Amino acid sequence: MADQYADNGDSKRPTEIPALRWEEPPEGPVLVLLDQTRLPAEEVELVCTDAPALVEAIRSLAVRGAPLLGVAGAYGVALAAVRGYDVDEAAAALESARPTAVNLAVGVRRAHAAYRAVIADGGDPRQAAGAALAAARRLHREDAEASARMAGHGLALLDELLPAGGHRVLTHCNTGSLVSGGEGTAFAVALAAHRAGRLRRLWVDETRPLLQGARLTAYEAARSGMAYTLLTDSAAGSLFAAGEVDAVLVGADRIAADGSVANKVGSYPLAVLARYHHVPFIVVAPVTTVDPATPDGASIEVEQRPGHEVTEVTAPQVPVAGTEAGGGIPVAPLGTQAYNPAFDVTPPELVTAIVTEEGVVSPVTADALAALCARSRQVTIS
Amino acid sequence: MADQYADNGDSKRPTEIPALRWEEPPEGPVLVLLDQTRLPAEEVELVCTDAPALVEAIRSLAVRGAPLLGVAGAYGVALAAVRGYDVDEAAAALESARPTAVNLAVGVRRAHAAYRAVIADGGDPRQAAGAALAAARRLHREDAEASARMAGHGLALLDELLPAGGHRVLTHCNTGSLVSGGEGTAFAVALAAHRAGRLRRLWVDETRPLLQGARLTAYEAARSGMAYTLLTDSAAGSLFAAGEVDAVLVGADRIAADGSVANKVGSYPLAVLARYHHVPFIVVAPVTTVDPATPDGASIEVEQRPGHEVTEVTAPQVPVAGTEAGGGIPVAPLGTQAYNPAFDVTPPELVTAIVTEEGVVSPVTADALAALCARSRQVTIS
Repeated sequence: MADQYADNGDSKRPTEIPALRWEEPPEGPVLVLLDQTRLPAEEVELVCTDAPALVEAIRSLAVRGAPLLGVAGAYGVALAAVRGYDVDEAAAALESARPTAVNLAVGVRRAHAAYRAVIADGGDPRQAAGAALAAARRLHREDAEASARMAGHGLALLDELLPAGGHRVLTHCNTGSLVSGGEGTAFAVALAAHRAGRLRRLWVDETRPLLQGARLTAYEAARSGMAYTLLTDSAAGSLFAAGEVDAVLVGADRIAADGSVANKVGSYPLAVLARYHHVPFIVVAPVTTVDPATPDGASIEVEQRPGHEVTEVTAPQVPVAGTEAGGGIPVAPLGTQAYNPAFDVTPPELVTAIVTEEGVVSPVTADALAALCARSRQVTIS
Repeated sequence: MADQYADNGDSKRPTEIPALRWEEPPEGPVLVLLDQTRLPAEEVELVCTDAPALVEAIRSLAVRGAPLLGVAGAYGVALAAVRGYDVDEAAAALESARPTAVNLAVGVRRAHAAYRAVIADGGDPRQAAGAALAAARRLHREDAEASARMAGHGLALLDELLPAGGHRVLTHCNTGSLVSGGEGTAFAVALAAHRAGRLRRLWVDETRPLLQGARLTAYEAARSGMAYTLLTDSAAGSLFAAGEVDAVLVGADRIAADGSVANKVGSYPLAVLARYHHVPFIVVAPVTTVDPATPDGASIEVEQRPGHEVTEVTAPQVPVAGTEAGGGIPVAPLGTQAYNPAFDVTPPELVTAIVTEEGVVSPVTADALAALCARSRQVTIS
């Protein structure tokens, strides 16, 4: 009698549903998204046939994550152009779908500029649409390449800092292929370590209040076949105390000119714990995350999010991060006010290294960051 | 036309439902509990007419918290005795209702010993029942008095450390009247500061995974009319960085002879953050929490709790901390393993002071703790 589990490969072989893909005819032209609001319970694809559908997907957080939003926005412009809709209108709607996500606007503008350049040169809309699509594809490819380079630099750094191998890495929030045109930032480094046989364990902070770690990073880790373990954010202290963390890897929302790192709330306590326990705290982010216009950590404005994200719990079936209603199950007394900053700021003296696609900055100083930006094509062009 | 909200005092005037009370005839003899599994959604009383009902209430966490369990256990023995049930059987069942809660066993044994002493002296069961009830009431009163003394010592310490007043206190987990025959430990200090007009704000950590802060401490704070704000555990880092925390007040599950403090997971990261930000980290606990038989932090065995507390979310209607099923809504992929220690250990060098009913230990040293235990009636007698 055959082993009944022998062919049960579904749960072992990672399914390969990308966060986003462009489909040509006959299925397309459409933009297909993995609906992240349904994860990890279900893998459901969302097919966008026009820009308004994509705007709705962005608003509902079906597609999210700064770099991926840029790629999605660029494809959205291309979609409108290829299908013959009003491209200016689509670009405007896409750009304002989530006002605080700067990458989204950057991606939209890049495809839109490519479209307009062809029109301005006397090209027809069909040629212009082709240019917009090419721009979106280029952004997508660049994002993937940047991920791969960050992963390479990050793994080399890990190997240098931890020559014994068998890395036990703690991460926070969600930084993998669900937020990127490639394999992400911090998660991409852990993934590279895993593929090289040098990741002993990925510790995954659940990341309250929206549980991106539990819902999305655990999903990515499971798909990749990594050894991973989930924990509440404050249980990280016990792991450090037990000597179970070799390095912390996080992404970044914005890096100030002095090297202060704004990232998902909960990153700063990890940096303080890491320092107390002499564990490297490593930030992985593309060079575009460095904002020379923000001089220091104090200049970073911290978004305060609605209290109901803390006072209510939502099921994964319910879209997270709804900014209006709430709609979850109350866990605190009615009328309870909550302090709910979206991110926190880690000062440069607590950051061991910043890993970018252009190389590693360590120690983190304003001069080193400025030099990195100067030699980065992306920053000097923009 | 009268203001329809003018008489809506219910939500403003704190209702006074104690966590536990003994009722004499004609309503009793019964033990009435506030069903903590229904908080904060509903205030429902649970009436126990015999020991098995109380055992069930203890198992379901309708009544919880180390000191309160001791008081409940003692009343449970008295209830069996007064109603003429088998007292030895009741005591055995109560003592093992939650095996790890040492206070429960201590309370049960105290009432049981009082009962047996009368019988051994030739007294009748009615007299013995009276003795058991008197023992339970004495324990209840002692617990309330210890709370009051801790609150007094703690407030004096706060005023000394923070002479400017306007204390902004951060607390973790639940340490008020829901876990005590009195007003609790850390929460009792905050309450004393509030009554003295010197509490500017109580910052309430939600306390993942079981959300005792959101569910219970916020409820206690709201009932007391305090200015309080809820936050996710890892948002505490942002508060420290913003200079919004003047002191941290937590309870303790066990204090080793060297002053290492085992408390709800998440306490240790707060201690590290407090040290990094030069903020006092204060532990409030009765002297009985000091365990001279545990030499140091490394000797404290940390209970690992079921992973489903992390991988699933439960609504407040569902009893928390169920050790078997799960029964919540999964938030992580199926098969996800979780690291879920019940508490963590803060070394004495990170503890500014330990506040007990017998006085304050600061700095926290083995000698100072031993001296405290020596002059404490409770410890020398037991």
